[in-house]
Amino acid sequence: MAKWKRSARLIDMLKQLLARPHQLIPLTYFAQKYSSAKSSISEDLAIIDEVMTREGYGLLETVTGAAGGVRYIPKLSLDQAKAVLDDLCVQLSNPERILPGGFLYMSDLLGNIDLLEQIGHIWATVFSEEKIDVIMTVETKGIPLAYAVAYYLRAPVVIVRNEYRVTEGSVVTVNTVSGSSRRMKQLSLSRRSLPEGSRVLIIDDFMKAGGTILGMMELLSEFKAKVVGVGVMVDSPANVKLVDSYVSLVKVTDVDIKERKIRVELGNFLDLGGKKYEKN
Amino acid sequence: MAKWKRSARLIDMLKQLLARPHQLIPLTYFAQKYSSAKSSISEDLAIIDEVMTREGYGLLETVTGAAGGVRYIPKLSLDQAKAVLDDLCVQLSNPERILPGGFLYMSDLLGNIDLLEQIGHIWATVFSEEKIDVIMTVETKGIPLAYAVAYYLRAPVVIVRNEYRVTEGSVVTVNTVSGSSRRMKQLSLSRRSLPEGSRVLIIDDFMKAGGTILGMMELLSEFKAKVVGVGVMVDSPANVKLVDSYVSLVKVTDVDIKERKIRVELGNFLDLGGKKYEKN
Repeated sequence: MAKWKRSARLIDMLKQLLARPHQLIPLTYFAQKYSSAKSSISEDLAIIDEVMTREGYGLLETVTGAAGGVRYIPKLSLDQAKAVLDDLCVQLSNPERILPGGFLYMSDLLGNIDLLEQIGHIWATVFSEEKIDVIMTVETKGIPLAYAVAYYLRAPVVIVRNEYRVTEGSVVTVNTVSGSSRRMKQLSLSRRSLPEGSRVLIIDDFMKAGGTILGMMELLSEFKAKVVGVGVMVDSPANVKLVDSYVSLVKVTDVDIKERKIRVELGNFLDLGGKKYEKN
Repeated sequence: MAKWKRSARLIDMLKQLLARPHQLIPLTYFAQKYSSAKSSISEDLAIIDEVMTREGYGLLETVTGAAGGVRYIPKLSLDQAKAVLDDLCVQLSNPERILPGGFLYMSDLLGNIDLLEQIGHIWATVFSEEKIDVIMTVETKGIPLAYAVAYYLRAPVVIVRNEYRVTEGSVVTVNTVSGSSRRMKQLSLSRRSLPEGSRVLIIDDFMKAGGTILGMMELLSEFKAKVVGVGVMVDSPANVKLVDSYVSLVKVTDVDIKERKIRVELGNFLDLGGKKYEKN
């Protein structure tokens, strides 16, 4: 096998690193594929890391030793994150979103691939130092967000169902009161979907009192799983918050149906996620 | 602004191209960002294209003229696609998947990010020559697959709901008979989610007779939209197929509950998608 030129190596390595964020790739794999010395591979990685860091794409993390290698850690810079979420605030405050009952139409945003990818990147930055085994969400609108994060954190997704489905096999079910629909809701999770002791990141699109999130936490305790983080896209004021610790991206503080005005501001991701952002 | 070195340019260009498949990036954008001549940019792109084509990642498409530029077209080679789907067949034929009634547990596969990304890549290859405005699926298990394709084809996703939800605003509803549950099912799509005349790719996880897909097609005709393709992950035998033309990745031909044996083979993607694959 012919030796690869540096330019070709850089392209191939970057492609592979980007395709598998948070996964360790041994340097020997690259050295063998390119018939190159490990020292050349290390130089290549330094070049890639320099550009990635400078352009705010993330960074490469090198692990030394026999089981060592390199992994891509996606990190969006604070400035980029703020730009994405400022734009989300503007979009959410469009009065055409107001539905009867003061609900907001958001399905277009949850279908927008560019936005989802950026939100996934932000959450992956905020939660980058947690060891996460599984990302959990509830059908239906949380699903696009959960997968957006999962692509960056490279963890599998489990979906909590609102109704029993035969295709889930045996399930564990809890009851919860949804704040938005003000009715009892069942949350079911397939028995075989989650190994005991899993470390779980909960993701959802919208949170008011947090009844659904609390229900998911109760469900997880049935699986002896540990909640390592909660992320919601849109936070909304409530008299009582049932969940203490969560990361919200934006907050809808007021929907005035009569005046047709929506007030939206940045969520608490800066406070809670600030530590992770300082490093960039 | 200092001129960028070739190595840094290659890294930054590839990152940007990979992040936006199927989207045209003007050469002037790169030339300005790197303070480099367009001829150098073209040389860089030729290097990237060569590695991508050789390694089976896809290719770069250059559009000349004033509105020209370059775009990344993700294409998975036939060999790679077959390897992914052969492995899917092996996984699906695991008898532990058999549920009461002969249903198969597949939620773990739909939570597997690596598999989803590869399936998205395969469908993006099969449908790469269609102009697609929107990708449509139905809750719940079709959603991960629809987004997996959407990341590669860079089209927005709309989700058909089984129940009326206040957060969807006014909806159009059709009734359909689901083959798997043998009961009437409502399919609703938000009025504002789809512009008239949209070109739509339908994606779902499982198809037996095709009642749900047919229902989605009827729904689309209410929006004066055009179906440009149908992709299902798992096809299953039925006495009557209600949908003529669809691309399936794998086919479960038999589930023997007594003997606990599942027979799975490759779907029709080779016949229908073969033309697109020849080019690699």
